[in-house]
Amino acid sequence: MNRIITLTTDFGALDSYVGQIKGVILNINRAVVFVDITHDIAPFSILEASFVIEGFYKYFPSGSMHLAVVDPGVGTLRRALAIRTKDHTFIGPDNGIFSMVLKREPACEIREISNASVISGNPYPTFHGRDIFAPAAAWLAQGMAFEQIGLLVSDPVLIATPAPREIANGIEGEIIHVDRFGNLSTNIRREDITGAVAEVKVGDIAIHGLRKSFAESPLGAPLALINSFGYLEIAVNSKAANETLGLGPGMRARVLFEYPNT
Amino acid sequence: MNRIITLTTDFGALDSYVGQIKGVILNINRAVVFVDITHDIAPFSILEASFVIEGFYKYFPSGSMHLAVVDPGVGTLRRALAIRTKDHTFIGPDNGIFSMVLKREPACEIREISNASVISGNPYPTFHGRDIFAPAAAWLAQGMAFEQIGLLVSDPVLIATPAPREIANGIEGEIIHVDRFGNLSTNIRREDITGAVAEVKVGDIAIHGLRKSFAESPLGAPLALINSFGYLEIAVNSKAANETLGLGPGMRARVLFEYPNT
Amino acid sequence: MNRIITLTTDFGALDSYVGQIKGVILNINRAVVFVDITHDIAPFSILEASFVIEGFYKYFPSGSMHLAVVDPGVGTLRRALAIRTKDHTFIGPDNGIFSMVLKREPACEIREISNASVISGNPYPTFHGRDIFAPAAAWLAQGMAFEQIGLLVSDPVLIATPAPREIANGIEGEIIHVDRFGNLSTNIRREDITGAVAEVKVGDIAIHGLRKSFAESPLGAPLALINSFGYLEIAVNSKAANETLGLGPGMRARVLFEYPNT
Repeated sequence: MNRIITLTTDFGALDSYVGQIKGVILNINRAVVFVDITHDIAPFSILEASFVIEGFYKYFPSGSMHLAVVDPGVGTLRRALAIRTKDHTFIGPDNGIFSMVLKREPACEIREISNASVISGNPYPTFHGRDIFAPAAAWLAQGMAFEQIGLLVSDPVLIATPAPREIANGIEGEIIHVDRFGNLSTNIRREDITGAVAEVKVGDIAIHGLRKSFAESPLGAPLALINSFGYLEIAVNSKAANETLGLGPGMRARVLFEYPNT
Repeated sequence: MNRIITLTTDFGALDSYVGQIKGVILNINRAVVFVDITHDIAPFSILEASFVIEGFYKYFPSGSMHLAVVDPGVGTLRRALAIRTKDHTFIGPDNGIFSMVLKREPACEIREISNASVISGNPYPTFHGRDIFAPAAAWLAQGMAFEQIGLLVSDPVLIATPAPREIANGIEGEIIHVDRFGNLSTNIRREDITGAVAEVKVGDIAIHGLRKSFAESPLGAPLALINSFGYLEIAVNSKAANETLGLGPGMRARVLFEYPNT
Repeated sequence: MNRIITLTTDFGALDSYVGQIKGVILNINRAVVFVDITHDIAPFSILEASFVIEGFYKYFPSGSMHLAVVDPGVGTLRRALAIRTKDHTFIGPDNGIFSMVLKREPACEIREISNASVISGNPYPTFHGRDIFAPAAAWLAQGMAFEQIGLLVSDPVLIATPAPREIANGIEGEIIHVDRFGNLSTNIRREDITGAVAEVKVGDIAIHGLRKSFAESPLGAPLALINSFGYLEIAVNSKAANETLGLGPGMRARVLFEYPNT
């Protein structure tokens, strides 16, 4: 069966960088199926990529491979990693891009991509996506044993992802992502909300309780719900909440419970 | 033979929503070929999606499936539909997104997607694309009998698409779409133009007769032609007509015939 | 084995033009694998497309086909071409879009796509991508003999691509492309730099020597290197050089050697 390789990068849609990566992989291994997740990660934003990867990978079949290249340190001594979890393989730079996956699935095997027969003869110091990550993905997809890719790594780089914190009568986090509809995702997860929600406060806006869907609020009214990623989200029914409410990433969001924390 | 599934959404290119949909489908059925049509439908614009779908589907092989998710009513009681025409299957919300297809091909079977074994256990009220439409497409592509998907529907939602009207000596319509080149498509179809064209008028611009191709007019000159979708289009040879002429969607366009209507 | 067809166009992401092309190809030949390179070539920019195509095609497996449609002359008498090099096939309008490929690989067979059984019955004068180039690609991918596509062409259109010129103590070229990161590629190739580099000058900026990777310069500092396409590039470590330095396409770039030309 053809191996699935997803792609998540900050290369954009104009240049042929992604095309070159696919060409290199197909040159080694024709039996792959590419699924482009996005190439519009903000340039160099490892944090955004980490958030996106956590959001989609678990929906893919067991055995899928996820290639992620947001690589401000390309050409430095930062390592190139292949990571194996129970069901998935991840390929990318050792810069924290898989931090949120590694928090979710701590038990996994991590190796540095260092096998010289895998890496293209003279990897170009500005484009490891094409010359290191792509051939590594292609050979692993081809069936190369995982341990052949390189030595074990025990200390992958992890980035600090903003974490919510308990407050007197609730929990406080921040807006970390705006989607195309203007919906504002916070870093507060469903399981962080341990009490009945009285109010969600963000900027000058106070929203009463949680809804299940956008349509439970009147057209144009602000609402809060748990989004399809499992995070608290601020939205406006049929409008862009970021524009309507004047809110954006980095702003504090507080969930106040009906009763104080016990 | 692998089943073709086209995708038309308003999810944009940044988030992983489309990736999640593809992952869910591949998890159920690896033997599919995805063709992304566009994910840049204006947010919530059912009308634009309806126009785009009418434009492309007939070029696909018999047996193709077309998944379309522009779904402002997600989480409400609006139905989820599977529609079968002679050669194609359409999957999407019951909000009129397939109106222009249904006008073209009135005889077809329509069913509500309600089979609980198809829908993901607990469909998320903000993302039916992933939890209802994707698994329905995957199972139908897998060979599930169409009647198993759910009960017959006889009254799908249809949206009013702006229609041209006859005038004394011609026909009047409006600009309904601007493409990437700035070409302005109207809702006047080739078959609506029942006389020899003397003039096309839109805003302050008067264009004499119809051309067959952009290049039949001098560089920079406005022209009118029947575009590759079969609609009257206002264009400027090698320029963006919307910018050059100051025209856009919603503006009236009139075709005046050489002789009055008979 | 499924035939690879890459696609490079200026059709953008919104409309269904690319979808129609893929539909037409799949209708003739299901055994193809599409790889979208970009559909965001600036409208009508044959030069940009030519640069992009030169950059990616050589990374694809032998036997790949490359369909490129940037076609301001659609509907005129300009020819439709199929070009064969040692390892690749190119399909597109005869307007110079393959100029940089043809400079690289002069010995190749070029034919006009004129076989009436290949071209769709009544090719639409505004969309040869769908009605001429797509079916030609599909039939060639299907195994049709190359000579059946049409008559030999000996004088394909070539466009003048800006060439660097020698100056007293170095070489002078110009910025020809900005990528998504703001990196500025010039038209000066690695092999044009025949001396040890003392300085790279562009606008008011003077950069000492060449680096190998972005990270060899301090954060925010301008640098020059040979990029992954083999061209001299002006960049800024972890910043967008075009914005930081106020530079863009068309601006002159000079490389000064440590010793005068011999």
